[in-house]
Amino acid sequence: MESRNIRLAVIPGDGIGTEVVAEGLKVLEAVGTKIEPTHYDLGAARYHRTGETLPDAVLEELRGYDAILLGAVGDPSVPPGILERDLLLRLRFAFDHYVNLRPVKLFPGVETALADTSAEDIDMIVVREGTEGLYAGTGGVMRRGTPHEIATQESLNTAYGVERVVRYAFEKAKSRPRKKLTLVHKTNVLTYAGDLWQRTVNRLAEEYPEVTTDYSHIDAASMFFVSQPERFDVVVTDNLFGDIITDLGAAIAGGIGLAASGNINPERTAPSMFEPVHGSAPDIAGQGKADPTATILSVAMLLDHLGLSAEAARVEQAVADDIVDRLAGGASRTTREIGDDITARVSG
Amino acid sequence: MESRNIRLAVIPGDGIGTEVVAEGLKVLEAVGTKIEPTHYDLGAARYHRTGETLPDAVLEELRGYDAILLGAVGDPSVPPGILERDLLLRLRFAFDHYVNLRPVKLFPGVETALADTSAEDIDMIVVREGTEGLYAGTGGVMRRGTPHEIATQESLNTAYGVERVVRYAFEKAKSRPRKKLTLVHKTNVLTYAGDLWQRTVNRLAEEYPEVTTDYSHIDAASMFFVSQPERFDVVVTDNLFGDIITDLGAAIAGGIGLAASGNINPERTAPSMFEPVHGSAPDIAGQGKADPTATILSVAMLLDHLGLSAEAARVEQAVADDIVDRLAGGASRTTREIGDDITARVSG
Ligand SMILES: CC(C)[C@H](C(=O)O)[C@@H](O)C(=O)O
Ligand SMILES: CC(C)[C@H](C(=O)O)[C@@H](O)C(=O)O
Repeated sequence: MESRNIRLAVIPGDGIGTEVVAEGLKVLEAVGTKIEPTHYDLGAARYHRTGETLPDAVLEELRGYDAILLGAVGDPSVPPGILERDLLLRLRFAFDHYVNLRPVKLFPGVETALADTSAEDIDMIVVREGTEGLYAGTGGVMRRGTPHEIATQESLNTAYGVERVVRYAFEKAKSRPRKKLTLVHKTNVLTYAGDLWQRTVNRLAEEYPEVTTDYSHIDAASMFFVSQPERFDVVVTDNLFGDIITDLGAAIAGGIGLAASGNINPERTAPSMFEPVHGSAPDIAGQGKADPTATILSVAMLLDHLGLSAEAARVEQAVADDIVDRLAGGASRTTREIGDDITARVSG
Repeated sequence: MESRNIRLAVIPGDGIGTEVVAEGLKVLEAVGTKIEPTHYDLGAARYHRTGETLPDAVLEELRGYDAILLGAVGDPSVPPGILERDLLLRLRFAFDHYVNLRPVKLFPGVETALADTSAEDIDMIVVREGTEGLYAGTGGVMRRGTPHEIATQESLNTAYGVERVVRYAFEKAKSRPRKKLTLVHKTNVLTYAGDLWQRTVNRLAEEYPEVTTDYSHIDAASMFFVSQPERFDVVVTDNLFGDIITDLGAAIAGGIGLAASGNINPERTAPSMFEPVHGSAPDIAGQGKADPTATILSVAMLLDHLGLSAEAARVEQAVADDIVDRLAGGASRTTREIGDDITARVSG
C-alpha cells in the first residue's frame, strides 16, 4: 500500500502521557507512513501556566487534522473534572466522537486475570457512546456545603444520538464472524433512557436479520465479563456504562497496559482521536515504567481508520510478537525499551 | 443465647425466589430461633392477577415486622422496571434502607474466577447507598418514539443522604482490622455529585483519624476488583456504582450463588430487608437448580441484625463447612438438597 501524508495532531497531555506517546510516534514513523506530527501542549502544565485548558482557537486548529493522538489527561494538582471535562470530553463532544471503540481482545499467550479462560474466550469489541448520557455534564448543586445540600447529575439521551451509535454497532457486528450484538444498560432502573436504548436496538434489529441481539443489565454484564466473557461479541452501551465495562475489559484482557481505544467520528466531519484507555498515572510518571503498548495499539487503530490497514496489521503483529517474547520471560523493560523493540519489529 | 420471637415477613417473589427462600426459612427454623414467618404474595403473579405491585395497605402492614426476607423480583412477562421500581425499590425507599450492605468475601477453599488470588485477598464489604442517586427514578421522556425523542434520568444526591451512609461506612471500617475506607465514584465526570461525596468523606475522616481513606474512580475500581482485590476493605459508594460493583464482587468471590445482602435501616424506624444479590433467574426457575446459599447467608445477616449473633455465626459456619465439602467433589445437588445439607449442619 502506498504511503500518504497524515496530518497528525499530537496531545501528549499529563503524567505518563508524554512517555507513551513518544513510543507511539516512533512506531508510526517506523511503519513507513509519512506523518507530519504537530505537538500540542495541553494539560495540567498549560493550565497552571496560563489558566487555559483548550482555547477556542486551538480547538478550531485541531479540527483541520486527519487524526489526533492523545496520551492521557489528568493531574492531582488540578481539581477533578477540569481537564477531563474542558479538554478531553470537550474534544470528544466538539468533534462528535459518538463512537468510542474499545476492543477487548486477549492476545495469544497473554495471561488473563481469569482462572479458567483462554484467548478464544475473550474477543469482543465495545462500542461505547461518546457524546451523551451522564457525560453531558448537566446537573447542579444547591446549598453547597450545608446540611441541606442537593447535588444532581443528569443523563441526556436522544433518539438521534442513540440510533447512530447503535447502527454503528450493528454494522460492526454484521462484519464479524459471530454477528452478535449485546446491549448493556440498566433498563429496569433507568427506565426512560433504557426504554429508548432497547427500542432502538429492537427497531434496528429488523434491518439486520443476520445479527443476533441480546441484552444484559450492567450489573450482570460486569459479572459475565469475569465469569463468561465468551458471551460477548459486540457490546453497545452508553457513555458511563461503557467507561466502566471497558476498564473491566482491560483487566480481563491482559491489563490496562494493553487497552487501546478510538474516539471515532464515523462521518469524518472532524478528526477522530486515538488514545490508550489508561489514565495519566501520576504515581509512575517520568520513571520509564509505563507500558506504551496500549498507545501503540491505539496507533494501529488510527492507521486502520485512515485506510492504512496493511500498516495497522503490521503494528498489531509486531505487538503480538513482542508479547509472545515478554511471556517467554526476560528482563523487565522500560517504556522506551518496549517502544524500541516494537519499532524494530515494525521496521524489520 | 436465649431465643426470641422474630416476626418475619417473607416475600419469595418471582422465579427462583420461591425456591431459595424455602431453604432459607428451613435453616432459620433449624438454628433454633422462634420465628413467625408470614408469607406475602407479591411479584409477577400478583401483578398479572390483580394489577397490584405493592398496595399501600400491605406496605403499612410490612412496616410492623422485625425484618423482611426477600427472594427475588422480576419476570420477563412484566415490562422492565415495574416490579423493580414499584415493589423492590419502593420497599427500600419507604423503609429508608439507606445502607445496602454487601460483603464480598471469599470463603476458604472456594474457587475464585481470578487466577492469582487467594482467599485472604478478597475480604471486603461494600456499603452501597440505597435510597438516592439514579435510583430516585426521576427523569422523563419527550417525543417518545419519534426521531426527536429525548430521554433523561436524574441522579439526586443530598448531604443528608450521603452523610449518613458515609458515617455508617466509617463506623464499619473502624470496627475492622484494616480500618480502610475507599470511596468509589466518578468525581472527574459527575462533578456535582462527586464533589458532595468526596467532601463528605473528607469531613468525616477528621472524626475517624484511625481510619485510612482512599478514593477510586468506578472504572479503575472495577479493574482493581479483578487485578488487585486486596486493595479494598470497606467500600462506600452510590446506589448505581454499588449495584455494579457488588455483582462484580460476587463474580470474584465465588459467584452470584454465594452473594448475600442486607437492606439496612440502621435507626430501626422500619424493618430491614435481607435478600440474595442474585435476581429471579426465570430461565432456571422451578427446576431445583438455584443455589440457595446466598439466601441462607442473607438469613445469617438477618440474624446478626436482630442481635442473634451466635445463631448468625452458626449459619455462616454451616455454609463454610458445606462449601468445603462441595469443593471436595461429590454429586451436584438440587436447591433442596443444598438446603437440607446446610440445615442438617445447623441442627447437628
Ligand atoms: C478521564 C475520563 C474522563 C475518561 C472517561 O471517563 O471517559 C476515561 O476514564 C476514559 O475512559 O477515557
Ligand atoms: C433488581 C434491581 C432493581 C436491583 C438493583 O439494581 O438494585 C438488583 O440488581 C440488586 O442489586 O439488588
